[in-house]
Amino acid sequence: MDHLTKVTIITIGDELLIGQVIDTNSAWMAERLNNEGLWVNKKLAVGDNREDVLKALDEESRDADIILITGGLGPTADDITKPLLAEYFGGRLVTNQDVLNHIRFLFEEVYRRPFTERNAKQAEVPDNCKVIHNDRGTAPGMWFEKDGKIFVSMPGVPNEMKGMMREYVLPKLRERFGGTHILHRTLLTAGIGESNLADHIQSWEEKLPASIKLAYLPNYGLVRLRLTASGRDRKVLEDEIDHQFGLLKTLVEQWLVTDEDQTLVQVIASLLKSKNKSLGLAESCTGGYIAHLFTREPGASAFLKGGIVSYANEIKESSLQVEHNTLVNFGAVSEETVREMATGALKALKADYSIATSGIMGPDGGTSSKPVGTVWMAAAGKDRIKTRHFHLRYDRNRNIEMTASYALDLLRRLILESEN
Amino acid sequence: MDHLTKVTIITIGDELLIGQVIDTNSAWMAERLNNEGLWVNKKLAVGDNREDVLKALDEESRDADIILITGGLGPTADDITKPLLAEYFGGRLVTNQDVLNHIRFLFEEVYRRPFTERNAKQAEVPDNCKVIHNDRGTAPGMWFEKDGKIFVSMPGVPNEMKGMMREYVLPKLRERFGGTHILHRTLLTAGIGESNLADHIQSWEEKLPASIKLAYLPNYGLVRLRLTASGRDRKVLEDEIDHQFGLLKTLVEQWLVTDEDQTLVQVIASLLKSKNKSLGLAESCTGGYIAHLFTREPGASAFLKGGIVSYANEIKESSLQVEHNTLVNFGAVSEETVREMATGALKALKADYSIATSGIMGPDGGTSSKPVGTVWMAAAGKDRIKTRHFHLRYDRNRNIEMTASYALDLLRRLILESEN
Repeated sequence: MDHLTKVTIITIGDELLIGQVIDTNSAWMAERLNNEGLWVNKKLAVGDNREDVLKALDEESRDADIILITGGLGPTADDITKPLLAEYFGGRLVTNQDVLNHIRFLFEEVYRRPFTERNAKQAEVPDNCKVIHNDRGTAPGMWFEKDGKIFVSMPGVPNEMKGMMREYVLPKLRERFGGTHILHRTLLTAGIGESNLADHIQSWEEKLPASIKLAYLPNYGLVRLRLTASGRDRKVLEDEIDHQFGLLKTLVEQWLVTDEDQTLVQVIASLLKSKNKSLGLAESCTGGYIAHLFTREPGASAFLKGGIVSYANEIKESSLQVEHNTLVNFGAVSEETVREMATGALKALKADYSIATSGIMGPDGGTSSKPVGTVWMAAAGKDRIKTRHFHLRYDRNRNIEMTASYALDLLRRLILESEN
Repeated sequence: MDHLTKVTIITIGDELLIGQVIDTNSAWMAERLNNEGLWVNKKLAVGDNREDVLKALDEESRDADIILITGGLGPTADDITKPLLAEYFGGRLVTNQDVLNHIRFLFEEVYRRPFTERNAKQAEVPDNCKVIHNDRGTAPGMWFEKDGKIFVSMPGVPNEMKGMMREYVLPKLRERFGGTHILHRTLLTAGIGESNLADHIQSWEEKLPASIKLAYLPNYGLVRLRLTASGRDRKVLEDEIDHQFGLLKTLVEQWLVTDEDQTLVQVIASLLKSKNKSLGLAESCTGGYIAHLFTREPGASAFLKGGIVSYANEIKESSLQVEHNTLVNFGAVSEETVREMATGALKALKADYSIATSGIMGPDGGTSSKPVGTVWMAAAGKDRIKTRHFHLRYDRNRNIEMTASYALDLLRRLILESEN
């Protein structure tokens, strides 16, 4: 990717270095930058510390053409980015009247909280930057240029950063650097491990042209394969990557879940919508996680009736009509129970399809006959039901995510096998 | 933090640079390292690219004492870390018999998949490193030392990395660098914004000794305040930070949610367990997210009966006994509906307390009278109910998270106000 315009993303804030906050901003930024043909060659996080920030600016501007900075722009004393940038670029802080008016408007009309001296200080910006309007908050963005390099500083609050990127930064970068293209083609497989998959496609992979890069992205029992190509002639690039992607799809056909950059949830949502079928969920061990996976996507109301998180056994009986004797004789974590949960969900939620999960996610609750990691799942339709069980060996969160992933794939297969 | 042993975390993989994967490993690592008195001064992500990885190793070993590396150790061609490390440290790859036996065992006894040449290659390690056993997967870890600096390479798979850190890397680092302490004290506030809070505690903050650092961590309508101190005399350090933390707690008393590094969910879980009360959830717009927040913590079964994700209106009627007329006359997003959802959840889930949410999370579904971001929520107990509404202005995911956060705080206040 040597011929591409290079971007480095610098995130400022101690909270990232002591593990209190997980950075989701830079992944979002990287994806959008790639769409513009800009290649992120490095991401780094440094603390709220003068020397570390100055050093990062110096070093990164040697390798990258564009340096995007987030964080450290709040109104409090630990937010040091703005005076540092003023110093680094040799400007001085002056009050920007437009920004001041905007902050005053936010406090008086939107937040309805007293407007203080401290808030007014957020309207101060270095006099040698282009100010970027922050429609969603008080801290303005700043665009600097120095020795042919572009530096953009934005707040770390995700929706404020995203608004600025979408409305100002990306369009400006497109204007300046447009013309190069980075194309990705991604497919998702289920039911085969990473190394077996690699063996299966090895002879094709070895013949890939140098301009195309293959990546394996294993995740929760699924493996995603991604092809990446870059260059200036979009048509040539598209023909080449689509040709290789076609070969790859044929090779992995029997494990192929989707040939788009979609999640399993998105694949199932499309299937249900195209068949005009509805879904209901009966979750015990996944505790609402599968419902959340569906409802965090817009448009879930088109097919999702709802879900019952039957954490307590009495709720399995009262809300899902699981027989008391089934629970007593086979236990909550059993094939019999998940079958009854799944058919109970079809009825209680008036749905065409359902998923049920029940397991011991850990760290506690295991027994010798059902150790931590034992999980049963079912997917049901009007006339058929499929069940599976696993012995997972991970920590609680990963066990929950793996269970969700396997249960979703079970439902996908059930839907595909159904007649209608 | 200049006197501390410095750690840099390097993450290798294109998937991090194109935004396909969010890095959660480094936050976990940073938290554990801090507990050992080791200070993470930088985190960076580079691609699967020879020059970038070698450059990162060179540059980071200048500033840091310990360099922890994750990723790029898989069995496929895009995983380049191992040969690069062999080259960088001047070793050559040799098969390690213990690792080979372990991989063969995993394939034959655990995965029950064919053991191939490619898998055997994972047992090759540089002959000048100390091999770290990977109990949870096939790729071994590697510990190198060069010019007084320590380099540790681990797989990027979270539970494999975590196992190695817990069982080998952290104990070894403790042995070598023990003696310095980093202490944090954290409290959580609700009901006051970051800048007003800063004004309120300004005179105290200005008098903080240089050895103690204050950080503001605003998140979803809550603000977390964190004090950090470091030094070699743990007793002196503890006295000093506890004294300042006591002053801070008194200053923010009226907004204080907890004086521990707990989430709102953990605070509520403790409250319910100590009062021996149970909880049921009725989620529409949060779609299972609140249930997931509770159930991803171990021990939720002690108080959580379950939840009903009533995404469709008919489920609000059939599973939560919301009156048909209420939905017709006031709409699903209304105070009346969330009241009935909350009392319905108490009955359907046989719970002492409940939370209900209903709103329009976007991007679609808004009307002129109820625009996107309109949300109602209720918290109910046996003898009282509280409701609130908001007009949120964020994207779908953030609207869901904000709604969950506000609804949880509403429940917390209701529980505290209840007699029993």
